[in-house]
Amino acid sequence: MHENHAISYRITGVASRRFGWIADPAGLDSAVLLELSSDRAFGSRAAASAPHQPDNIRDWLAAAQANVLFEATSLNVRDGQPAVDHIRAALEHGAHAITANKGPIVHAYRELRSLAKALGKKFLFESTVMDGVPIFSLFEQMPTIYLQGFHGILNSTTNVILSEMESGLSFDEALKKAQALGVAETDATHDIDGWDAAVKTAALITVLMDVPIKIEDIQREGIRDLTMPAVRNARRDGWPFKLVCLAKREGNRVIATVAPEKVLATSPMGKITGTSSYIYFETDIFPGLAITEENPGLYATAYGMLADFVRTARVSDL
Amino acid sequence: MHENHAISYRITGVASRRFGWIADPAGLDSAVLLELSSDRAFGSRAAASAPHQPDNIRDWLAAAQANVLFEATSLNVRDGQPAVDHIRAALEHGAHAITANKGPIVHAYRELRSLAKALGKKFLFESTVMDGVPIFSLFEQMPTIYLQGFHGILNSTTNVILSEMESGLSFDEALKKAQALGVAETDATHDIDGWDAAVKTAALITVLMDVPIKIEDIQREGIRDLTMPAVRNARRDGWPFKLVCLAKREGNRVIATVAPEKVLATSPMGKITGTSSYIYFETDIFPGLAITEENPGLYATAYGMLADFVRTARVSDL
Repeated sequence: MHENHAISYRITGVASRRFGWIADPAGLDSAVLLELSSDRAFGSRAAASAPHQPDNIRDWLAAAQANVLFEATSLNVRDGQPAVDHIRAALEHGAHAITANKGPIVHAYRELRSLAKALGKKFLFESTVMDGVPIFSLFEQMPTIYLQGFHGILNSTTNVILSEMESGLSFDEALKKAQALGVAETDATHDIDGWDAAVKTAALITVLMDVPIKIEDIQREGIRDLTMPAVRNARRDGWPFKLVCLAKREGNRVIATVAPEKVLATSPMGKITGTSSYIYFETDIFPGLAITEENPGLYATAYGMLADFVRTARVSDL
Repeated sequence: MHENHAISYRITGVASRRFGWIADPAGLDSAVLLELSSDRAFGSRAAASAPHQPDNIRDWLAAAQANVLFEATSLNVRDGQPAVDHIRAALEHGAHAITANKGPIVHAYRELRSLAKALGKKFLFESTVMDGVPIFSLFEQMPTIYLQGFHGILNSTTNVILSEMESGLSFDEALKKAQALGVAETDATHDIDGWDAAVKTAALITVLMDVPIKIEDIQREGIRDLTMPAVRNARRDGWPFKLVCLAKREGNRVIATVAPEKVLATSPMGKITGTSSYIYFETDIFPGLAITEENPGLYATAYGMLADFVRTARVSDL
């Protein structure tokens, strides 16, 4: 477990809104890339430094001679694009695909899983739920286990906002504070209206329960309609509001909800504050198996992608 | 994750106090073995049914043509024997070794790990801590992570006894009840005096922190000296006693203790009752990562060995 992984690597391509598609199979200089990222006039200089500047993912993967793609576009709830296309292209090019984007799991998991398997490549996505905590990998390590259902708190932004509202801030003030802390994005709609939590719930159901579910099949309610007095009184009474994700099997289906719920303050969910998260799995072997992640930093998601990268590089799991 | 593992297997050898060493490379009949196990006059019949009856582990492994050894002798705190010899013999024979016995981890981890690696075999022991919850495998899935310390509740017997004492039973009555429930063994000394918890703590330190530690280096105190009124009053006051395991790095060393401690009733440890267990890891990436296992059945430990078996059979972790 404390092995030296002895992985040598080089960054042979970068694609972003600012850089466009750039590639150099001999390796791009990450220090230069970082410097250019913080440089307002980076565009022409970045272009000048890269020998290849294709205009689409497939040519870019070929020019970069990519072995592994790190896909980190932002979530598109509607159809998971362009991340689905990026991952499909990477696998077909012959690269492993690692994503931090939940969209492809919800919209194309079975297709991408089959494609990866057929091509002998890995399709990994450990950063999509609970930052980099290896939730999906944990289940990989529990062969034959049957997941009956789960519940938990998976969205940090709403958790931070609810805590701030408990101390007397209005919803708008709490949102601004969460944004100032770097927890909430400028457009926090996805978090506030429960989309992020619903997509995470759908991803867990899709992968761990092996039941495809559409996001619109998840009964979803955000925290926008909670008033400060309601939130503050709930905490005072010992039953604070939390945005709770829940899934349970009913016959061949899975019933799932995301909604603000009052939970006992001294219960595990009642104690989840700030950016912490929590999930409780009901399985046939372990009646209750719960994982709590306390106050991860922003690097935790990046760590998940790093861990996925090490997984792609492992030839054996001895 | 819901793959068909397509593992075919046969049981080619059994060794136990009742059976002695018996082997048949063509396969022993597990239904017959089970029947014989519950038969008082099994000895001669078992012997009659097995073509090979060697008298030592090496001949037995050879006669059984074993690919995998399941080692489940009981804990020998002093030197880990005979389990260490069994595992060494299995690896040298060319078999993977799976054990539910903590002794070999504490007494011979580095040697057995090196031997397994050199011979291209697996040495797995997921059942040794928290039943079959994949604690060791979880850390395998967190490459490069640095474990700073941990604390938790890892022994069920003492947990059950303390709960019974809280409801008014004397220590002796509570022990008898735990034995009647099948939680405590006839000789519960290992549990009550903190040996089991200390060996688990040492196993976690040895494997996950990569610091070898002797059991005698763990400051160990059991629950034998706690009186019923003390235990009951502690619970009444909201600070129940729990047998807490703790480890933390200090320089190149790890300081570890096992002792009854008062914990806040509403804290995660305060809520661990019955056969449940809990562990909280402090790491560089995840400041706090906690796992709670609620009320596992007796089959959970067997499941851990099954999961280890699937791991040995996996040619790829795709």
